[in-house]
Amino acid sequence: MTPATAAVRIEEGLESALGRADLGLAPPGLMAAVRHAVFPGGARVRPQLCLAVAKACGSDNPALAEAAATAIELLHCASLVHDDLPCFDAADLRRGRPSVQKAYGAPLALLAGDALIVLAFSTLAQAGAGAQTRLAPLIQVVCRGVGMPNGIVAGQAWESEVDPPLDLYHQSKTGALFVAATMAGALASGSDPYPWRALGERLGLAYQAADDLLDALATPQEAGKPTGQDSAHLRPSLVAQLGLRGACERLESLVGECMDAIPPCEGSRELKELVALQATRLTPKGLARSAA
Amino acid sequence: MTPATAAVRIEEGLESALGRADLGLAPPGLMAAVRHAVFPGGARVRPQLCLAVAKACGSDNPALAEAAATAIELLHCASLVHDDLPCFDAADLRRGRPSVQKAYGAPLALLAGDALIVLAFSTLAQAGAGAQTRLAPLIQVVCRGVGMPNGIVAGQAWESEVDPPLDLYHQSKTGALFVAATMAGALASGSDPYPWRALGERLGLAYQAADDLLDALATPQEAGKPTGQDSAHLRPSLVAQLGLRGACERLESLVGECMDAIPPCEGSRELKELVALQATRLTPKGLARSAA
Repeated sequence: MTPATAAVRIEEGLESALGRADLGLAPPGLMAAVRHAVFPGGARVRPQLCLAVAKACGSDNPALAEAAATAIELLHCASLVHDDLPCFDAADLRRGRPSVQKAYGAPLALLAGDALIVLAFSTLAQAGAGAQTRLAPLIQVVCRGVGMPNGIVAGQAWESEVDPPLDLYHQSKTGALFVAATMAGALASGSDPYPWRALGERLGLAYQAADDLLDALATPQEAGKPTGQDSAHLRPSLVAQLGLRGACERLESLVGECMDAIPPCEGSRELKELVALQATRLTPKGLARSAA
Repeated sequence: MTPATAAVRIEEGLESALGRADLGLAPPGLMAAVRHAVFPGGARVRPQLCLAVAKACGSDNPALAEAAATAIELLHCASLVHDDLPCFDAADLRRGRPSVQKAYGAPLALLAGDALIVLAFSTLAQAGAGAQTRLAPLIQVVCRGVGMPNGIVAGQAWESEVDPPLDLYHQSKTGALFVAATMAGALASGSDPYPWRALGERLGLAYQAADDLLDALATPQEAGKPTGQDSAHLRPSLVAQLGLRGACERLESLVGECMDAIPPCEGSRELKELVALQATRLTPKGLARSAA
């Protein structure tokens, strides 16, 4: 499976999930808001990762792996829609175009996020009906990635605390869903998920580091979303903690740790290529400029 | 199982779910907001109904029935928390005390709702690990109750449409979660859920009728929440459609339909008592006064 094939499967999986959400019966405004949240997507990194791990683990149930990848991307999209709401970032721009709340208003954006969360679990249940021993642990792993105590919802909530623990904050806000992506990929193929935890953790930290740098260095046009948000909201960030140079060095070191965290397996070469591809993508243009 | 025993099981199930959400690791503000959303509860009608149907169907897996009841109540609480946000009702009062958004602010209220949705599914998955053939259909039924195209999220979204279909709006906004409660109770006991759909539908419509009357007739003190919201927001309501007298007659007729919708089963007597008890509760004091 090349990344291009995986990309097609991911878009098809998302399209199919949205089709089941609509059935010609859903309120048209809500359906439009949900579609706007999901298409066109960003890099689809988390589902790519999930499918790549599923493949590395033998991929004996491609439909379940695809459902896991779809569910994780739907949950990622939900978190972006809720992040952009007026009570958080009040962001008008996402992926280079109007955010859902800007295009459809806050009420439908709130509901679209809720609907995407529910759709993620119904997608898992639909594919899991034929793989019953895998369904419960798969849902548990996905829930740990998004819910309490340490999923992305908790990560966002640490921003409401005074002086939150920075590692736990970053691990929850970004790392948790990457961990869910790698572990869900393994579980979907009937493999032990725990050897895959470290890869998800390292990738999540690398993404958070890159995102902090992007926020500090890129223009909104380059980032496709508002930047300078961490300093504007006085949020804890790697740039605030280590400075620009320190954050760049940390990102570089994390990419190396990702490579080391890939467990020995048949698909390790493809996984390393995926990590290398993402590492190139991670470096924002502004970062490259300032490093020059 | 008396209603009192069921009530204890419901509170214990919710307490246990919140314990798993915390584990001493969750952000304290988020945990407090989630707890505020769930305790003290309202009438816990939906989980009572779920447990009563599970018992009527033989209740061979009480842990799974309890998980289903817990999940449905968590989802109901999530919907109330999100309903009260500034972009919807901006309600400061819920169950006679400050709403979650009033007590903890909109960001934590938004996240608390999201966390409750995820917790509902992890509760199902935890109990469903030992009942694998039942888990997938159980999750599907619960998802249909809350998500798209016709769950409570869709019901809320119909409020953003011009001239929404009133039956579909009410069926989605309130009926869908009652249908999920009855069908999930049957599924948790390994029974065919479809004979239980009509009871959930009729109960949901009765609740919506009662809620419309409460909104039109009760004071905020009597209702424990802001009233007069339907007319203030120009929402479609049974009172607007049929007038006060017509809405009262419709409620009375729906209670009768609920009784008729209980399928023949061993536990039908207890279920009829539960419906009768709720029918008495449904009549708001103001409604009784105006009928006098």
